[in-house]
Amino acid sequence: MPVITLTTDLGLDDYYLALVKAKILSQLPDAQIIDISHSINPFDIAEAAFVLKTILKEFPKDTIHIVAVGTQAVDDIRHIGIRYKDRYILTADTGLFSLIADQHADLIVELQMNIESDVLIFPARDLYAPAAVFLANGGTLEVIGRRTDKLVERISVKPTTGHDYIKGAVIYVDKYGNAISNIDNTLIKEIGKGREFHIGFVQKGYEMTEIKKRYSDVPLGDRLALMNSAGHLEIAINQGHAANLLGLHTGATVIMTF
Amino acid sequence: MPVITLTTDLGLDDYYLALVKAKILSQLPDAQIIDISHSINPFDIAEAAFVLKTILKEFPKDTIHIVAVGTQAVDDIRHIGIRYKDRYILTADTGLFSLIADQHADLIVELQMNIESDVLIFPARDLYAPAAVFLANGGTLEVIGRRTDKLVERISVKPTTGHDYIKGAVIYVDKYGNAISNIDNTLIKEIGKGREFHIGFVQKGYEMTEIKKRYSDVPLGDRLALMNSAGHLEIAINQGHAANLLGLHTGATVIMTF
Amino acid sequence: MPVITLTTDLGLDDYYLALVKAKILSQLPDAQIIDISHSINPFDIAEAAFVLKTILKEFPKDTIHIVAVGTQAVDDIRHIGIRYKDRYILTADTGLFSLIADQHADLIVELQMNIESDVLIFPARDLYAPAAVFLANGGTLEVIGRRTDKLVERISVKPTTGHDYIKGAVIYVDKYGNAISNIDNTLIKEIGKGREFHIGFVQKGYEMTEIKKRYSDVPLGDRLALMNSAGHLEIAINQGHAANLLGLHTGATVIMTF
Repeated sequence: MPVITLTTDLGLDDYYLALVKAKILSQLPDAQIIDISHSINPFDIAEAAFVLKTILKEFPKDTIHIVAVGTQAVDDIRHIGIRYKDRYILTADTGLFSLIADQHADLIVELQMNIESDVLIFPARDLYAPAAVFLANGGTLEVIGRRTDKLVERISVKPTTGHDYIKGAVIYVDKYGNAISNIDNTLIKEIGKGREFHIGFVQKGYEMTEIKKRYSDVPLGDRLALMNSAGHLEIAINQGHAANLLGLHTGATVIMTF
Repeated sequence: MPVITLTTDLGLDDYYLALVKAKILSQLPDAQIIDISHSINPFDIAEAAFVLKTILKEFPKDTIHIVAVGTQAVDDIRHIGIRYKDRYILTADTGLFSLIADQHADLIVELQMNIESDVLIFPARDLYAPAAVFLANGGTLEVIGRRTDKLVERISVKPTTGHDYIKGAVIYVDKYGNAISNIDNTLIKEIGKGREFHIGFVQKGYEMTEIKKRYSDVPLGDRLALMNSAGHLEIAINQGHAANLLGLHTGATVIMTF
Repeated sequence: MPVITLTTDLGLDDYYLALVKAKILSQLPDAQIIDISHSINPFDIAEAAFVLKTILKEFPKDTIHIVAVGTQAVDDIRHIGIRYKDRYILTADTGLFSLIADQHADLIVELQMNIESDVLIFPARDLYAPAAVFLANGGTLEVIGRRTDKLVERISVKPTTGHDYIKGAVIYVDKYGNAISNIDNTLIKEIGKGREFHIGFVQKGYEMTEIKKRYSDVPLGDRLALMNSAGHLEIAINQGHAANLLGLHTGATVIMTF
């Protein structure tokens, strides 16, 4: 039976998450439900997108990824089901998909409400959970939604590039303080063409000229750049908090010059 | 196989919760164990009761709900198993059941200790976990406990009412700062009889005269009242923290006048 | 199918933990994965060891315990698989095993990397997860590793003892502030031989002369000593925070004199 994953801003302290799981289990008691994160910043679509992009294909084929972030707050938003790279995504039409997609979806449908109330107040429970059960049982998106092509587009904070530079930004800071940028290895190859480079920040004096393989390639407390497991350029300090010490919070500039 | 849920004050950082799960899994390796919350305030029976009441019937029939809050601290407390609305509840006789029950239990038993030690120091592991396994395997309460009728009664902080008012209190504040009261829609219908109303608080100047359907029915930063998914009157601020901004912490008065 | 447990310092907020679970589920979609704790202090091998020691045998036979703490930071560390007391342990050769072992392992192997990259940057995902799947499917350690006997030895912070005293230390403080020491009941029997005793700390005036059975054996707010469920001497305050109030943080001295 397919895995169902949950990425939300619901937190772990309240009973809301339990209500979503209860809805799934009430129809599918043996469901394999995996918590990705329930600490997404409320309304931070970009963070949710980055997490989803990172984990999407790591789960087995036909995994159903539910992403519910800030959707309760938005009026008259559409809710969508997407077939993409052999997995399903159930989420709101917030532009999230435009942030993760590097190819076309196989199918996008607008989920049809099948609930008594005319007002949807808890989409993760009332819409995504039943849809996930239906898909887990082998159902198809066409049955539970109406095909659509137009999704909200969100301008991805993509790096700007020139002949000899890539100007990107920090898009995620993890609990260790590692700052992950939107500069990925494909772009570095394309622009850099194997040339030597400098990595710099707004705060001067911390330039780096190498990409290391792991944290321990530099002494304790030293800064380093490396490619993280999702192929993104990450700025870290070996056993230190790079985001705080180098001022690399979400949105901070990271620039590579060749 | 029935779902087993856990509602405790054990937190997620220590190994205590793992010991409870280990006890279940050592006899039932395929058990579907669902964490409801492990952040209940220690010894806060009312909070645990509210959470249990909200999720109880959302889980499938025969689900076994373990509720272990503050029970380690209480000497010579009885431990009980309850059959109620087609689900099981395993908890201490702290008065919790009197706070959630709106009808009689089908059966209440006092759980019999079946452990070597004469002192029970960790009821969730040593008593509820084995009982849950027994019930999950199709066993019945009569076998593991002695029928009882007298439970500790706890005076529910129920609203007081008059011809033209309901005076209730905040009983739960969620992570977004939404303040959930003990005034439910049944009571509003009974007392209000469809009349117009004011909702007010100790802090003056924040009266409301409508119950909205969702957060986005008011502009960002505005306050609103709505019925939450458990049918309780909730005071919120659209994308704001109502509990802090309106002084609506647990115990604060919420009054409806008609 | 055997249970797979996870004890890490990865936290619950990032997607790293999800990547480990995805790796397991991509080969074993029905795996029973149990979170022990993801809040181990990074690089705190002693804390991880104490948690593992406490839960190891509580899980069913053949359970596979993955312990990944600080291992990303260490260069050229060996990764090992251990068969011990009918369970498996997959971890780095950090000395953790020497801290928990009170008898010889049945088998220890050095895990062989079976990944394309020559650099291992995320052992929990890239090495332990596939090894766990292999073991869960009935495979044996010999196939995935090379037998080894030499492990890093870590000097356990064991109590020092004399004819009439045991001088130990706090090794774990739980969320309630209970301070758990490295003095266990075997040692107390061996040295104490049933004699009367005093338990004391650096901070004077808090001596105790009894080991209680449970928290409620003393009045609210009073201190007590008891044996915890792992058989370790624990210093607590009934519904209070012993670590803060008695200065009993990790490393603090606990001394029994007979």
